Amino acid sequence: MKALVYHGPGKKSLDERPMPQLASATDAIVKVTRTTICGTDLHILKGDVPTCQPGRILGHEGVGIVQQVGAAVSSLKEGDHVLISCISACGKCDYCRRGMYSHCATGGWILGNRIDGTQAEYVRIPHAETSLYPIPAGADEEALVMLSDILPTGFECGVLNGKVQPGSTVAIVGAGPIGLASLLTAQFYSPAQIIMIDRDERRLEVASRFGATACIDSRVAEPVVEVMKLTGHVGVDCAIEAVGVPDTFELCQALVAPGGVIANIGVHGVKADLHLESLWDRNISITTRLVDTVSTPMLLKTVQSGRLDPARLITHHFQLDDVLNAYDTFGRAADSHALKVIIEMA
Amino acid sequence: MKALVYHGPGKKSLDERPMPQLASATDAIVKVTRTTICGTDLHILKGDVPTCQPGRILGHEGVGIVQQVGAAVSSLKEGDHVLISCISACGKCDYCRRGMYSHCATGGWILGNRIDGTQAEYVRIPHAETSLYPIPAGADEEALVMLSDILPTGFECGVLNGKVQPGSTVAIVGAGPIGLASLLTAQFYSPAQIIMIDRDERRLEVASRFGATACIDSRVAEPVVEVMKLTGHVGVDCAIEAVGVPDTFELCQALVAPGGVIANIGVHGVKADLHLESLWDRNISITTRLVDTVSTPMLLKTVQSGRLDPARLITHHFQLDDVLNAYDTFGRAADSHALKVIIEMA
Repeated sequence: MKALVYHGPGKKSLDERPMPQLASATDAIVKVTRTTICGTDLHILKGDVPTCQPGRILGHEGVGIVQQVGAAVSSLKEGDHVLISCISACGKCDYCRRGMYSHCATGGWILGNRIDGTQAEYVRIPHAETSLYPIPAGADEEALVMLSDILPTGFECGVLNGKVQPGSTVAIVGAGPIGLASLLTAQFYSPAQIIMIDRDERRLEVASRFGATACIDSRVAEPVVEVMKLTGHVGVDCAIEAVGVPDTFELCQALVAPGGVIANIGVHGVKADLHLESLWDRNISITTRLVDTVSTPMLLKTVQSGRLDPARLITHHFQLDDVLNAYDTFGRAADSHALKVIIEMA
Repeated sequence: MKALVYHGPGKKSLDERPMPQLASATDAIVKVTRTTICGTDLHILKGDVPTCQPGRILGHEGVGIVQQVGAAVSSLKEGDHVLISCISACGKCDYCRRGMYSHCATGGWILGNRIDGTQAEYVRIPHAETSLYPIPAGADEEALVMLSDILPTGFECGVLNGKVQPGSTVAIVGAGPIGLASLLTAQFYSPAQIIMIDRDERRLEVASRFGATACIDSRVAEPVVEVMKLTGHVGVDCAIEAVGVPDTFELCQALVAPGGVIANIGVHGVKADLHLESLWDRNISITTRLVDTVSTPMLLKTVQSGRLDPARLITHHFQLDDVLNAYDTFGRAADSHALKVIIEMA
C-alpha cells in the first residue's frame, strides 16, 4: 500500500509499505478513505516530537471502512464506516475510567507517532471498539475528518476547560484551524463576546464569518488595549491560547479577568513566564490538556443536528498521490490560505 | 486608643490614635479583644505592598465585641461577639454575587491595607453585616482568630482549589501556618496521602503531629524523587504551593500527576517559569486565589462540631503593649518556633 513516511527531521516521502496486520484481538484494520494533515505533523517533521521515529507512517486523523477486526471486537464489523479518533483508548485503565483517554496506559496519542498512522491506504487501530466511532448513515464523511482531532481539541482544551458560559466574554489568541475550532464550538454556549486575535488578516476574515464578535489584528492594534476597551476594562472570562509560543501565552495572562480561565491548547516547545506577581491574587485558573476525545459522541450529535458544520474548516483537496503537495500547501498556510486539507484515497 | 502603626518600610510603632468613627450606615465599630500577625503584615513591613501607605494601622484578623453599628445594620447589635473576616464584602456587587468577595468592588482585602486594621483596641468594619460573623455561644474565641484568614486561606486556595478528594494524593510545599492550615482542612476530605515538604525540621514535626502521612525535609532529600517513590512514580493529584517563591512553584510543577492540580496559595513578588514544554499535554490545572472567606460559615461549623481545632496553630501569646515583641517572635519563626501568635487587648 501507499503511505506517507517520516524519514527524520525535514524528510518525508510517499512510499510503498506492507499492509498492516492485526496484532491484538482488540485491533481493527481500517481502509482509510480520507485523512488530513495536522499542525502536529509539521512539528514532527521539524524533529520536535522525539517519540516519533524515522520510518513512521504519519497521520492521526481520518475516516474509513472497517476491513478486518480482531477476535475480541464485537461492536464493529467489516464494512462499517468509522471515524478514527486521534486518541487510542483501552477504556479500561485508570486514566480511561476517569475520561482521560489522552493518558491511556496503552494508548493516548500513538497513531502516527508511536505506531503507524492514517496517511496511508490502510491503518491498524488498537483498542478498536473504544477508538473508532461508527459514522451515522447519511453523514458527510469528509466533514467528519474534522472530528478526529481538531474539533474535540478546540472544544475540550479550549471551550470546556475555559468554562465558556452564556454571557461570558472569550478571547481566542490564534485564528488557525484550532482557534477556529474553538470559535465554532464556543458558540454552543452562547457567550456574549468572542474576540479573535491573530496577525493574519485573512484568518481574521474567516473568524469574522465564523461568528467572532470582534477581531484584533495584532500587527495593527495592541490586543490588551483593545480587549480592555471591549470588556469594560475588566478583561475576559476565558482566554484561549491556540498558538503555542511564550508571547501568546503571556498575552493571555494580560487578557484574563479576575476569576477567569486561561485555557491552553497550544503545543509548547519552551517554557513561558508566568506572572504570579500579578496573578497570585486574581482567582484565575490555567489549564492544559491533550485532547481526550471524550466529546466525540457529543460533537457527532451537533453535526447531525446541523448545529455544527465542520466542512467550513476544509479549504483544499488532494489525492494521496499528491500528498507532498498537500503538505506544502498546508505548511504555507499564510500564502495558500489553507485551513484544513483533505487527502482522499483513490 | 493604642494601635500598631506602619510608618514605611522597616518601621512600625505602638502609637496613640483617635478612636475610629462610623463612616457609613453599613459600618460597625468593633472593640477588638484578640488579634494576630500574618505573614502579609511582614510583607507590608518590607515595603512589598504599595497599597498600604505609611500611617496605616496594620492587622486584618481578630475577634471582638460590637461597640456601635451604623443605621443600616440590622443583624448585628452592640455587645455581639464577632469574628472579623480579613475580607470586607458588600455582598451586592457582581464579584460578591459570584462568591468572589476577595474582589468586592468596595471591599476585598482592605483592612490593615487600604483602611486601618485590627491591631488596635478598636476597628471600623465596613460592610459589617457581610464582613463580621457572630460567634456561637460558648466558642473558644481565641481559637476563632485563626478563622479570620489563615484557615479559610489554606482551605479555599489550597484544599478547595486543589480539588482534594477521598483517596487522592496531596503534596503541600511549605509547612508554615498556611501550609499547616491546608494540612488540617485537607483531612476533611479523607485523602490517601498528605506529603509535607519544608526545610524546617521543627515545622515538619508539627506537620507530622497534625496528620501528614509523610514529611520530606528538602535540605536532606530530593523532594521530587521522594514524592515519586511515595506515589508509584505518578506524582500527586494535588500540589499546594504555600511559600510564594519561584523555586517552590516550580517544584510543584515537577510533583503534579497528569490530570492533577497545582493550587497556589503563596504571595509571589516575582514571576516564575512555567514549564509548558512538559505540561501542555498533561491535563493539569493551576489555580490562584486571594481568599474569599466564603467558607467561613462552613469552617465555623467544623470547629463547633470538634472536627477542626484551630487552637493547635497558636504557639505564643502577647499583650497589645508587647506587640513589637510579638512581631519579633513571629518574624523569627525559625528560631522561636512560632506558628501563630495571639495578641490580647488588656
